[in-house]
Amino acid sequence: MRVVILAHGKFTGMGGKTARGVYFYSPHEIVGILDRTLAGHDASEFFPKRREVKIYSNLKDIKDDYDALIIGVAPIGGKLPAEWREEIKMALEEGKMVISGLHDFLSEDDEFSKIAERTGAKIWDVRKPPENLRVADGSARDANTVLIAGTDCSVGKMLTAVELTREARKRGVNAGFLATGQTGIIIGADAGYVIDRIPGDFMAGAVEELVLKLRDREIIFVEGQGALTHPAYSGVTLSILHGSYAKKIIIAHDPTRREHHDYHGFSIPPLRRQVELYEKLSEEVSGGKVVGIAIDGENMSDDEVERYVDKVEDELSLPATDVLRYGANKFLNLFMM
Amino acid sequence: MRVVILAHGKFTGMGGKTARGVYFYSPHEIVGILDRTLAGHDASEFFPKRREVKIYSNLKDIKDDYDALIIGVAPIGGKLPAEWREEIKMALEEGKMVISGLHDFLSEDDEFSKIAERTGAKIWDVRKPPENLRVADGSARDANTVLIAGTDCSVGKMLTAVELTREARKRGVNAGFLATGQTGIIIGADAGYVIDRIPGDFMAGAVEELVLKLRDREIIFVEGQGALTHPAYSGVTLSILHGSYAKKIIIAHDPTRREHHDYHGFSIPPLRRQVELYEKLSEEVSGGKVVGIAIDGENMSDDEVERYVDKVEDELSLPATDVLRYGANKFLNLFMM
Repeated sequence: MRVVILAHGKFTGMGGKTARGVYFYSPHEIVGILDRTLAGHDASEFFPKRREVKIYSNLKDIKDDYDALIIGVAPIGGKLPAEWREEIKMALEEGKMVISGLHDFLSEDDEFSKIAERTGAKIWDVRKPPENLRVADGSARDANTVLIAGTDCSVGKMLTAVELTREARKRGVNAGFLATGQTGIIIGADAGYVIDRIPGDFMAGAVEELVLKLRDREIIFVEGQGALTHPAYSGVTLSILHGSYAKKIIIAHDPTRREHHDYHGFSIPPLRRQVELYEKLSEEVSGGKVVGIAIDGENMSDDEVERYVDKVEDELSLPATDVLRYGANKFLNLFMM
Repeated sequence: MRVVILAHGKFTGMGGKTARGVYFYSPHEIVGILDRTLAGHDASEFFPKRREVKIYSNLKDIKDDYDALIIGVAPIGGKLPAEWREEIKMALEEGKMVISGLHDFLSEDDEFSKIAERTGAKIWDVRKPPENLRVADGSARDANTVLIAGTDCSVGKMLTAVELTREARKRGVNAGFLATGQTGIIIGADAGYVIDRIPGDFMAGAVEELVLKLRDREIIFVEGQGALTHPAYSGVTLSILHGSYAKKIIIAHDPTRREHHDYHGFSIPPLRRQVELYEKLSEEVSGGKVVGIAIDGENMSDDEVERYVDKVEDELSLPATDVLRYGANKFLNLFMM
């Protein structure tokens, strides 16, 4: 599949997490990125280790030369700007697939759905919950699951899960990547639902269903969400911990953060307490143990990361690494029996 | 309001929790209970301390002498049996309100909604989530909230919250009862949503909205749900702990249970660990402290309850009581400054 990513105004900044996640990790060919504020540049100018992709100001600038338009950012204020609507309509008119992670479903928009019906274009609303929701019942309790949990939002949980899965496969292990958020699903997880969109009673059950879908895998890497002490999203975090019956837990952590992102005054507990919280909450359900710390070193120098790795390994006796810098090899040895 | 409770086959047994909750606590006059398996009896034969209410086999046996029909039980298998449908249609035809706590919304049933439209009857689907959902943002962080949490489902959280609110009011305190489940809402909570039906991302925000609605109250008693170690519902539990910014926590507990109800092999951690879990998870968000243990002594003799109260007070240095047996007075003294 040849895809275009819509990321107006946000490709390199806050709110561009999905767009960048797709750019970094999608197995599909990316033929262009739409960001009017960066048009004319190449994405690799901003992310030197990543692939070259041209940035355009409008879908019109890209010829008919793609299969899907991915909405990689949410509009400010929630309403779709007129220009985005034009681009989405253009794609649908051309019979292209439109993939959206927005809270408001494009398939429920009258104008979009009519065009899609006429041209045969597909609209994939990634956040749409599955049908036949059920409560967890313990049926996936024995699965060999590794949860990539975290101490806050946006600390590299998904990318750690992706890197672990890739590295395991390189070693010949039949590993599965279980996504719980939109980006992971869009880039081609082996199974996934946007868990935070599912009614509370059914969140753990939905994760359990995903684990059961991957029951033939030797090991399942589960993308976590949020944090156990996050004032808004902790319920999602705990439902994934329990619904995945995590046997091993890796905690993703950005050492430069003191408070939960965007939540002034809500401090992030230190790593030692995070380990304790995750293990204590897992004890009766799946007896999960924390086996590693995945450092999000985006805002740190190489030196700072290395010193922090030493400090964590010293104080907690747990392996630590920055997966983006150094890969997932150090962790992988923990799971290979 | 004069109400009828539909509780076929379940009034005294499993699955009758909502029906009994309404019977025990509704401020409305209850003119009859529908339970074909107990018809001819009086409810007070089964619950000697409670009000006298006749049990009928069919709504036809009750004359036009009521204002609302409350669906107090869920049908086995999820589908409404034909006889229930007849009774619901009968009520709607007579222009009566129908109040339902079912997962499937009666207002979205074609047949029911057409009758209601014609006769002006109201359908209140209590589980329907509010519109304008939002994530928690910390705006209710300073509220004076007491969370009635628990170690499992059905251990008396709601009734403890109701009794505490009543007792506080008797003492002249402007107390509020914040419900998070259907029964509490039906019996007239000061504010409430069925939190387990709300998408995960918005659960804590919805609880926060409820707290803000009651910001004029001197103290707010919040009904908890589930348990922190419940394999299916823990996410709901934690969202309510965080979204209510609990300052004080009472833990409801049935000492005769070893495992989570209906979850074979999932053990309930001992009280000391429960206190630790609730306090550790609350620490950064609202610094809540456990201040008492509400014993669900339904399956215990007076002697057993008294011995257990002594044991808890001894070992945990926390006041304990069986609110149904002895009232909420012992706890109230903790909140009156």
